Amino acid sequence: MNDIDVAELQRRLAAFAAERDWGQYHTPKNLAAALSVEASELLEIFQWLTPEQSAAVMEDPETAHRVADEVADVFAYLLQFCQVLGIDPTAALAAKVERNEKRFPLPEAPEPEDRHSSE
Amino acid sequence: MNDIDVAELQRRLAAFAAERDWGQYHTPKNLAAALSVEASELLEIFQWLTPEQSAAVMEDPETAHRVADEVADVFAYLLQFCQVLGIDPTAALAAKVERNEKRFPLPEAPEPEDRHSSE
Amino acid sequence: MNDIDVAELQRRLAAFAAERDWGQYHTPKNLAAALSVEASELLEIFQWLTPEQSAAVMEDPETAHRVADEVADVFAYLLQFCQVLGIDPTAALAAKVERNEKRFPLPEAPEPEDRHSSE
Amino acid sequence: MNDIDVAELQRRLAAFAAERDWGQYHTPKNLAAALSVEASELLEIFQWLTPEQSAAVMEDPETAHRVADEVADVFAYLLQFCQVLGIDPTAALAAKVERNEKRFPLPEAPEPEDRHSSE
Repeated sequence: MNDIDVAELQRRLAAFAAERDWGQYHTPKNLAAALSVEASELLEIFQWLTPEQSAAVMEDPETAHRVADEVADVFAYLLQFCQVLGIDPTAALAAKVERNEKRFPLPEAPEPEDRHSSE
Repeated sequence: MNDIDVAELQRRLAAFAAERDWGQYHTPKNLAAALSVEASELLEIFQWLTPEQSAAVMEDPETAHRVADEVADVFAYLLQFCQVLGIDPTAALAAKVERNEKRFPLPEAPEPEDRHSSE
Repeated sequence: MNDIDVAELQRRLAAFAAERDWGQYHTPKNLAAALSVEASELLEIFQWLTPEQSAAVMEDPETAHRVADEVADVFAYLLQFCQVLGIDPTAALAAKVERNEKRFPLPEAPEPEDRHSSE
Repeated sequence: MNDIDVAELQRRLAAFAAERDWGQYHTPKNLAAALSVEASELLEIFQWLTPEQSAAVMEDPETAHRVADEVADVFAYLLQFCQVLGIDPTAALAAKVERNEKRFPLPEAPEPEDRHSSE
């Protein structure tokens, strides 16, 4: 993931939409709806699977392609949503991870040197 | 977005879940459901807004924070889903963008040199 | 809606699933996921429409059929979900309507003496 | 479910919204979004549960109440959506059930006379 620049992808998505005059449709509300719809299309692949079957979806090439394709759609709408509202998704997630590390502290906090051995 | 490494965030999310023994819950199916639920929580902020109101959500600091927080949740579950299935979301999106550029060609294709000037 | 019995539809759906041995897939969790997926398919029809366009979807026969079909899918999974958990959806809604009438009292009370007695 | 009239509930929901001047928010698009959001709130209850745990949710009174409450919300928005577009959800489902009985015939088709006796 290091080789491809997320910000560059965001710029390509924005140019792609602008060239096709899709900006009029890309209100934050519509993009949030589209993001939600795409996330459901990803879920649809898993809806009747057992937990074990769900862990093996990448073994079938056709299903693997479908999963990756839905991931791309979700990611695309997430980046476009962030673009139109000026949100940096990576910074938002970094902030959240830091809040969560405080909000859900480790159940039993071992001594720093013990921590390693308990993992 | 360049300063913060997406792969690094993905590793922190994985470590965070592993330390809390949440791996048992993080089947691809459950993560797809959680991603879909978080995308809906983002949509919920917009569900009664007009298109114009939706474009102004970042003007209210409290709503802006809520939006960024839901973006972080969606992004977190997307990255965790990709992690457990070995999918590179940025590569998947790059492949999709290239397919879409072929699938939805510009309505009227100008000469290559004209294209540049129209952008 | 009076002529067709909802409970009868629920029985037909249950028989339909039982005859095809689909009961193994119809865990409450899977049915909740399927309900959510179908609700998103309904939303998909509207995701790029303006409020005005969304109000006119029934004017196009093909779209009207698609909308009714997705409504049927949502309703089917809602009834099947309720069936497997022994929930009466109509009773649950009646209880909710009553709670809401208390939770969201009318904003401006017309005749003070009348309103008071009705609350 | 026979005792409570679905059409009557639909009328009460419509009156409730009209009295509060919520009609302006109740575009088909917004109601489809709200329906999808509520379906996700129902799914949220199940997202980390095993299939077995999901089958036992009604054993805990607090969870049982939460499930019934989300069912009511989904049903309410489904009925309101249908109301604003003039769709009869029960007729739409009856039509779908009939189509599905043709689309997914029983895996092993018995002799016509046997089939009759099994229904």
